[in-house]
Amino acid sequence: MKKQQKNAHSFCRPEEQLEKICLNAVDVVSEKELLEKLKNSFKKKKPLRIKAGFDPSRPDLHLGHVVVLNKLKTFQDLGHHVVFLIGDFTAQIGDPSGLDKTRPILSKEEVKENAKTYSRQVFKILDKNKTEVCFNSSWMNKLSSVDLIHLASQYTVARMLERDDFSKRFKKNQAICLHEFLYPLVQGYDSVVLEADVEIGATDQLFNLLVGRELQKRKGQEPQCVLTFPLLEGLDGVRKMSKSYDNYIAIEDPPREIFGRTMKLNDELMVRYYELLMDKTKAEITQLKEGLKSGKKHPMKLKMDLAYFLVKSFHGSVVAEKEKENFENVFSKQKIPSDIPEFSVSPEKDFWICHLIFKVGFAPSTSEARRLIQGGAVEINGEKVTDSKLKINLKVGDEFILKAGKRRFAKVKVGS
Amino acid sequence: MKKQQKNAHSFCRPEEQLEKICLNAVDVVSEKELLEKLKNSFKKKKPLRIKAGFDPSRPDLHLGHVVVLNKLKTFQDLGHHVVFLIGDFTAQIGDPSGLDKTRPILSKEEVKENAKTYSRQVFKILDKNKTEVCFNSSWMNKLSSVDLIHLASQYTVARMLERDDFSKRFKKNQAICLHEFLYPLVQGYDSVVLEADVEIGATDQLFNLLVGRELQKRKGQEPQCVLTFPLLEGLDGVRKMSKSYDNYIAIEDPPREIFGRTMKLNDELMVRYYELLMDKTKAEITQLKEGLKSGKKHPMKLKMDLAYFLVKSFHGSVVAEKEKENFENVFSKQKIPSDIPEFSVSPEKDFWICHLIFKVGFAPSTSEARRLIQGGAVEINGEKVTDSKLKINLKVGDEFILKAGKRRFAKVKVGS
Repeated sequence: MKKQQKNAHSFCRPEEQLEKICLNAVDVVSEKELLEKLKNSFKKKKPLRIKAGFDPSRPDLHLGHVVVLNKLKTFQDLGHHVVFLIGDFTAQIGDPSGLDKTRPILSKEEVKENAKTYSRQVFKILDKNKTEVCFNSSWMNKLSSVDLIHLASQYTVARMLERDDFSKRFKKNQAICLHEFLYPLVQGYDSVVLEADVEIGATDQLFNLLVGRELQKRKGQEPQCVLTFPLLEGLDGVRKMSKSYDNYIAIEDPPREIFGRTMKLNDELMVRYYELLMDKTKAEITQLKEGLKSGKKHPMKLKMDLAYFLVKSFHGSVVAEKEKENFENVFSKQKIPSDIPEFSVSPEKDFWICHLIFKVGFAPSTSEARRLIQGGAVEINGEKVTDSKLKINLKVGDEFILKAGKRRFAKVKVGS
Repeated sequence: MKKQQKNAHSFCRPEEQLEKICLNAVDVVSEKELLEKLKNSFKKKKPLRIKAGFDPSRPDLHLGHVVVLNKLKTFQDLGHHVVFLIGDFTAQIGDPSGLDKTRPILSKEEVKENAKTYSRQVFKILDKNKTEVCFNSSWMNKLSSVDLIHLASQYTVARMLERDDFSKRFKKNQAICLHEFLYPLVQGYDSVVLEADVEIGATDQLFNLLVGRELQKRKGQEPQCVLTFPLLEGLDGVRKMSKSYDNYIAIEDPPREIFGRTMKLNDELMVRYYELLMDKTKAEITQLKEGLKSGKKHPMKLKMDLAYFLVKSFHGSVVAEKEKENFENVFSKQKIPSDIPEFSVSPEKDFWICHLIFKVGFAPSTSEARRLIQGGAVEINGEKVTDSKLKINLKVGDEFILKAGKRRFAKVKVGS
């Protein structure tokens, strides 16, 4: 891998850079080394090589990924060079033991396809000219079994078992297949090949990133600094954002969906998203929290700003403006009473609208409900329902406003 | 790998074969399966493929290896096909972590050279025409890192840690490098490639042989039967025979050395060697023990027979006859009194003969000892000592008869 020699390099002081880089970081290994690297880079006007690896086993990137992508952008803005690594080697292998159901085995074509959508998505955030996109298959496929055995010899079983998830599974007598011990080594070896100065990732990647440090040291390279950032909570506010939990906003989601789902966040989560996605300083976040507490800041207004920001980031300001307007038309201008009753339903596919109207109590029977629709008296989220045969997908976490006639409102919430 | 279809095949009944094969075995996994295989082979007149792997990291094979080689010969005599596998792949890699001092990394040339001497040595015992010599590098070098990862996925960390030595090291917090977990898999994979019906080895190989069974099952092959045989005790009677402990008799040792070292065995060890090296039945061994106990059999005579047998095996009967004669001349005909005193000394390099004579008490000073030698009055093992400056290497386990004048004898033993 060639090191970039003389890129456009900002002249922000190393200490200042450090502060921006470490904002929101959970682990920094180590701050001292990182400052040293930044100073050196500053002195020599030589950008650092910042590595971040992405698993291409799913085509969509979501807000969870944006946390790390934003940080990469920070590095770029400070003049550094970003290596966007697509871990297609392991994705191609998948989990051959068949134990890990969440990691599908992908064909070369699928990986290529996902990688293509990745580029499209990440360059909504990253600067294309300051980004090197790599596939680790390009060196890993050339690695012989002898090379892999050599790699394996550089790490002990005991150290590998220190990884939090391995340790837990081992204690619970849950199977750990041997190849799972090889994957962190592959990831670490990527850092050796790429001669990374810094690697960043989510907190659950800390162990793997540190393996990279070890392998670099053994190869006589200056070990990479490692920074981890929080896993963004998903829309449920509980689990990490993940496609498997269906609690995510994807970068490529339609703008209306991004806007709508953001508006549904609870206040606490909204602050969290401000913190991790809008790259606010600590002072700004403190101010925000205080404003919310004192009532100086209105949560609805803040949510609108966040939703606007996100749609703008992924779809541009024209679209963002349009979505904001739409939202205001549908919701704000509807004059929905602030104390409308909430109604919980269980998730269900193809739930008949008339049955819902009946259940909520807006009609004494489904045939009465049909008549209401035919009379044009029913709205969902401000849009008139015209088809009395309409089936709705009730998905966990969904919320919408059901209106019948002029005065009857209900907030329908789909529980689990 | 081609399976031999119609070899010369003996017509010994399967039950009879089983008895011969299992003689002296420590583990048989499983006898039932093995009998089934033997019956099948008998019915179809199709020899079984018997695999045994040898580590070519040292050029010499010794009596410890002969235990397994003899068993391979038994299989051949029963009409089966022997696959003599030289594990050059792992020998070429060695222990890249540098932790295992006993497994040197060998160059391709050294491995080739050792393999050549191996063939020369094993065909003193095995029938060349019924033996297939293989090198596992020929398939392992072609294995990609992806293939190796797939292989690794077929075994769990917990099961690997069940291996006795791993489990002990793990409990003692001694480092186990990851590549050590891969070696048993490589060995097991050899069985898959070779489509082995049976694999035999020393007891310390049991775990590795069972890995082969597992991998074969996963590949849809009929799993190999596994037999292990005792580790032969070395000349010290305590540790296993090994070049590292310098307690061995090598197949290619000079005949005089083989004869001499055998004659020095204690009675118990001599019986053990009869059992494991001369392929005696249980009944014969019981008879031998009883004969020794009752005084009907003379240990010296039995040792001579063993020494003769070993020299004959490795150097032919003409040489064996000559060595027997020589031994009788030097020792038996010397009329050494049966009750000569024993004298223990510590091991030491370049120990001056005159100092030894003085220590044993045959001379009041070293200058007196020198005079004895100059007068031609000193013998070691019946050979006159002519050089009064002679330095002797006193190695642990060595024994020799020192004689001064006509009547003074001492058996000098080198202790540890």
